[in-house]
Amino acid sequence: MKKPFLTLAQAREIVKTYPTPFHIYDERGIRENARALHAAFAWNPGFKEYFAVKATPTPGILKLLREEGCGVDCSSLTELLMSERCGFSGSEIMFSSNETPAEEFLLAAKLGATINLDDLTHVDFLHKTLGRAPETVCCRFNPGGVFTLGESKEGFQVMDKPGDAKYGMTRPQLAQAFARLRELGTKRFGIHAFLASNTISNEYYPALARLLFETAAQVAQETGCHIAFINLSGGVGVPYRPDQSANDIAVIGEGVRRAYEDILVPAGMGNVAIFTELGRFMLAPFGHLLTTAVHEKHIYKEYVGVDACAANLMRPAIYGAYHHITVLGKEDVPCDHVYDVVGSLCENSDKFAIDRALPEIRPGDLLVIHDTGAHGFSMGYNYNGKLRSAELLLRGDGSVKLMRRAETPDDYFATLVW
Amino acid sequence: MKKPFLTLAQAREIVKTYPTPFHIYDERGIRENARALHAAFAWNPGFKEYFAVKATPTPGILKLLREEGCGVDCSSLTELLMSERCGFSGSEIMFSSNETPAEEFLLAAKLGATINLDDLTHVDFLHKTLGRAPETVCCRFNPGGVFTLGESKEGFQVMDKPGDAKYGMTRPQLAQAFARLRELGTKRFGIHAFLASNTISNEYYPALARLLFETAAQVAQETGCHIAFINLSGGVGVPYRPDQSANDIAVIGEGVRRAYEDILVPAGMGNVAIFTELGRFMLAPFGHLLTTAVHEKHIYKEYVGVDACAANLMRPAIYGAYHHITVLGKEDVPCDHVYDVVGSLCENSDKFAIDRALPEIRPGDLLVIHDTGAHGFSMGYNYNGKLRSAELLLRGDGSVKLMRRAETPDDYFATLVW
Repeated sequence: MKKPFLTLAQAREIVKTYPTPFHIYDERGIRENARALHAAFAWNPGFKEYFAVKATPTPGILKLLREEGCGVDCSSLTELLMSERCGFSGSEIMFSSNETPAEEFLLAAKLGATINLDDLTHVDFLHKTLGRAPETVCCRFNPGGVFTLGESKEGFQVMDKPGDAKYGMTRPQLAQAFARLRELGTKRFGIHAFLASNTISNEYYPALARLLFETAAQVAQETGCHIAFINLSGGVGVPYRPDQSANDIAVIGEGVRRAYEDILVPAGMGNVAIFTELGRFMLAPFGHLLTTAVHEKHIYKEYVGVDACAANLMRPAIYGAYHHITVLGKEDVPCDHVYDVVGSLCENSDKFAIDRALPEIRPGDLLVIHDTGAHGFSMGYNYNGKLRSAELLLRGDGSVKLMRRAETPDDYFATLVW
Repeated sequence: MKKPFLTLAQAREIVKTYPTPFHIYDERGIRENARALHAAFAWNPGFKEYFAVKATPTPGILKLLREEGCGVDCSSLTELLMSERCGFSGSEIMFSSNETPAEEFLLAAKLGATINLDDLTHVDFLHKTLGRAPETVCCRFNPGGVFTLGESKEGFQVMDKPGDAKYGMTRPQLAQAFARLRELGTKRFGIHAFLASNTISNEYYPALARLLFETAAQVAQETGCHIAFINLSGGVGVPYRPDQSANDIAVIGEGVRRAYEDILVPAGMGNVAIFTELGRFMLAPFGHLLTTAVHEKHIYKEYVGVDACAANLMRPAIYGAYHHITVLGKEDVPCDHVYDVVGSLCENSDKFAIDRALPEIRPGDLLVIHDTGAHGFSMGYNYNGKLRSAELLLRGDGSVKLMRRAETPDDYFATLVW
């Protein structure tokens, strides 16, 4: 059972000022979740979460997370610029990118960010670009093959194919990169890996941690390099479906701690810091896309047309992803209708839900599309000339703050030569 | 064998002014193709192509097509505004949208556009919104079921499921809509249907035309309404793969003519105009995404990293769509290397080609990604904070005209509240 963080009365009040569709974020939920993460990893003195900016590139969110002690994980020039302007600097910034142009390495270095190198060939490229090797460098490891964790109790399996992923270095290349970087002057090293996306399993981070800790201990021994941190990247997911159980971050933190005690402490590496680059876990459940039912349609199926579309949330259209829907004010009405809930794109995949059991929906009803706090707005496009929406913050005291205004036709036309 | 419309020498000259990545369009090819379309349908005095703006919403392109006698098919408020500013008005504009908000119907009516109603419920919605029924209205028909055409000689089958599509009215609803509209004052009627996307078959339009002509003759008889035009919509595709044969628009036009002679003329409807809403066919082959190879990577596979990414062209990432790649200056070099050609998004699907045989690629090489003239730039997003590129026009005389400048970080930040 998924419950919105917004009531119909609150939503009706908000739409007087901000017309639908818009994304709204729950400050209280974001802060509580960030605190739970920090509590789960409090055993590690150097722990830091670098929020994956790509998930929700919104200054209002980044500043809030900074107040909670988070850093940022940037993947591009604009994300670095945004983070700088939000007050992040130095070791608060991780720069994890791939196929990186020289100018982005230059800006990352200027900001004092920790650079996470995706490939062995980037070692010399970075050195040539900066004219030096940074004192601290992270390298991305790709163990290859297939990664599986078996099924969760609901039958959702964690499976991904690192061997088909474009990211990271092979194990021999990792040692080569470390050796070469040390030769060029790097003193402090980190190791990063990403094996699977949106895992619903308390075992993912501990399993990844064991792999990385063992790799780190070996590489430290082989190369003599000082491993200062292990970056577990993202991958801890959220339950989009009501039949999925949420990850328990306390259990996850404890699982990583046990791996740390088992592997790193005996290897004399009990001072290694743990970093994370969570995006979805930090934000997804704390965002709603609020939209109004505009039309109903009765043809070969029953349709409800809403004023949001894939321009506001692309995951259902491109991944067939499930996003739960609540009709505000009808939370307790039986779900005895079956609808396709669709947006207005001239693109048949623009459907927020297909064959979804819902209460009867009438034009004018306000719908919450759940779990849009990460990879929601940020993946929005302007296809069909659709304008991207506003982003609002629901503060702890119930007031609403505008973090991003809705686009206007002038924004859409800004780069045109008529 | 796909040949770029750009040589290495031309490309090298252009990148001095406009750095890669960018989309570039071939004015000569666009004009010749539009003329071939008009020649193919010259037998029909009322013929008009309404270019699907969503494919390439760029004023420089729209104005060029207007010079060739095309109108525009708009699907949203901004597309209407753009078309108005490009000089289109009245019957030059078709407004085909779904889940349409009232304000968009109001603007379409103000511009004198022909409104294409997606649903029976929109009849009264439109009447209530405008306070009247327009003199001319088109209605969208969805025959339901599954549409197939059998296989082309290369084994590519045309198949789509209108019954699962959110568009259009059922056959009884179509007659109801006509009757109701006539009651409300509408005098001239059109019928529109879309059965399949990107068909590589000279049979698609003729088969669709037969279906629509028969439907039109029946509905005219049932309701007594005057059917002024039949709108064949889009769906005529282009050969993205080098092993596919292009559609022959002359053969297609002749196939539609035969259906017209067989069905409409005997029904006393020999004055019906034929409309099309082609997008992909009009533009896709006449656009290239030009990109520079930036990195090479040797892990479990061989990778070439380029400076374009899914933000510039999303079709490979979201549909697994094939786009041909030519390495400029190496057109005649053997394709004896196998690469994944990847962009820099932190998204593993950001791959323009997977296991593609290509000549050896070195950093600095200029690559043409083919057939990006439609649904290329227009589906671009800003994920990972990536900026959307410029759009250039290669004129008939070899000169280059900027139609859209590249985005800057300030554009990306324009709607933010810091």
